[in-house]
Amino acid sequence: MGAKGLTIGVFDSGFGGLTVLRELLPLVAGAHCVYLGDTARLPYGSKSRETIVRYALSSARFLQQRGAQLLVVACNTATALALDELRAALTIPVVGVIQPGAEAAAAACREQETGDREQEKMAGVLVLATQATIESHAYARACAALGLKATEKACPLLVPLVEEGWICEETPAVGGSANDAARASVTAQVLRIYLGEALRDAPESRALLLGCTHYPLLRPEIERTLAELGRPLRVIDSAQATARVVARILSENGGARGGLTGVGEATCEFFATDSVRKFERLGSRFLGRPVGEVQLVDLGG
Amino acid sequence: MGAKGLTIGVFDSGFGGLTVLRELLPLVAGAHCVYLGDTARLPYGSKSRETIVRYALSSARFLQQRGAQLLVVACNTATALALDELRAALTIPVVGVIQPGAEAAAAACREQETGDREQEKMAGVLVLATQATIESHAYARACAALGLKATEKACPLLVPLVEEGWICEETPAVGGSANDAARASVTAQVLRIYLGEALRDAPESRALLLGCTHYPLLRPEIERTLAELGRPLRVIDSAQATARVVARILSENGGARGGLTGVGEATCEFFATDSVRKFERLGSRFLGRPVGEVQLVDLGG
Repeated sequence: MGAKGLTIGVFDSGFGGLTVLRELLPLVAGAHCVYLGDTARLPYGSKSRETIVRYALSSARFLQQRGAQLLVVACNTATALALDELRAALTIPVVGVIQPGAEAAAAACREQETGDREQEKMAGVLVLATQATIESHAYARACAALGLKATEKACPLLVPLVEEGWICEETPAVGGSANDAARASVTAQVLRIYLGEALRDAPESRALLLGCTHYPLLRPEIERTLAELGRPLRVIDSAQATARVVARILSENGGARGGLTGVGEATCEFFATDSVRKFERLGSRFLGRPVGEVQLVDLGG
Repeated sequence: MGAKGLTIGVFDSGFGGLTVLRELLPLVAGAHCVYLGDTARLPYGSKSRETIVRYALSSARFLQQRGAQLLVVACNTATALALDELRAALTIPVVGVIQPGAEAAAAACREQETGDREQEKMAGVLVLATQATIESHAYARACAALGLKATEKACPLLVPLVEEGWICEETPAVGGSANDAARASVTAQVLRIYLGEALRDAPESRALLLGCTHYPLLRPEIERTLAELGRPLRVIDSAQATARVVARILSENGGARGGLTGVGEATCEFFATDSVRKFERLGSRFLGRPVGEVQLVDLGG
């Protein structure tokens, strides 16, 4: 590992947060990243606030015990419903995915300003996320604080479709059937339904914010569907925005916190609360490279 | 409640087991049924054996503490992966959904016997279920013990599609959009993919067994798809078969166990480990009538 740098804890209910880690790794040379997927209790996105807070706290405490000096809540649902509780309970800085996502969306919308005051009043961002994230209205609040109107759309079927690999970009599995195209067409049809409904409700949207860490895997398909619907909105990825915020915090506070060594690739360690084999198999799809060995941890759920 | 009869505990990871309770209630007059949906930890179907056993044991112990004198494991995944452990840990009779389903399938196949020995050797049943149930091969074993060949097909997207109500038979919600038909057509397309693949692998199937308690809500759509594919197999529902087995056990052992009073409608009590509002809202779709008040219980997950 070379000179031991800062330890960053990253957690999600499952694999989705690996899209945040994927964006983060190139920006935090010398850091050690400990990732926890709370797969025994996933998904968080369809559960209640009380349950999500309880799960998020136990996941976060585990990472702090593993030496995390900064925590990334790489899960939109946990950020939406448990960020305040996590900040109150932990003694380390906690970064969620919603504020960075909202800021990136606001910047994208500002770039498209027309100068027409009436048009500007109506302009806004369309946010896609899980049921629990949408019901929390956390994105709407974060956007409103930045002067941006958000229209929120729950898309509960996208996570299972991504986890099953019913996506175009998926490399066909060995022995993959002729049904791969049919499978991808199901996802395309689901996206047409969700995006069609959302754009009818928010005709003035200028950007589309991916408010779930699973959705970056659907980005090409989402962009294709937007084009088909004649509404080629700019797509904003909370995962990218969050990684940039973490890197900025670390570079600003590096000295004070022990900092990044800036030397060598960031290293990773992976934990999951359910089957590590499944994590090893699915995780690589989200991380963009093999996750390697995953360790099983029991959080008592 | 009138004369207090036998108490029956019924559990599932969520709402699906209500399809078993729905079939059971008309057969157990005078009984009191306590239903637990372990919704804070659902779904079981995509998790590992170790995790499912742990969850099933804590759910079952809760029901025994609530007075259950007989336990119905109204969840295919928990039956497939934890039935032996439940029987070893509990002091009350435990009925799962797999053996009754396999017996009903065997009976249905026998009814269609042709007398041609070569054809009979190939005949079998097609089982649709969750990933975890399929990977356990519990249905294949139960069917093999009855001299029946089972071809197993994991259908992981059906549970989320049912939970989202993307089904034809769904009464359109107030304010339901013109997209209802488009939503149902997604489910139809998913069924065509799953059933098309499964029937290619098992051309000699004579019956189709619904090996997940969510699937009875898709039964009309499944029958329609089978007809479209030119393979109108007889559809067997584990929920119905299980309810009949429970009723038979109770009538055989009624006297010895305190028995059914046989008087008045069976009464029900509902518990959930996550949001009771969501349970109240979704549960009625599975039970076929309003579930009424649901009580929250914390199993420590």
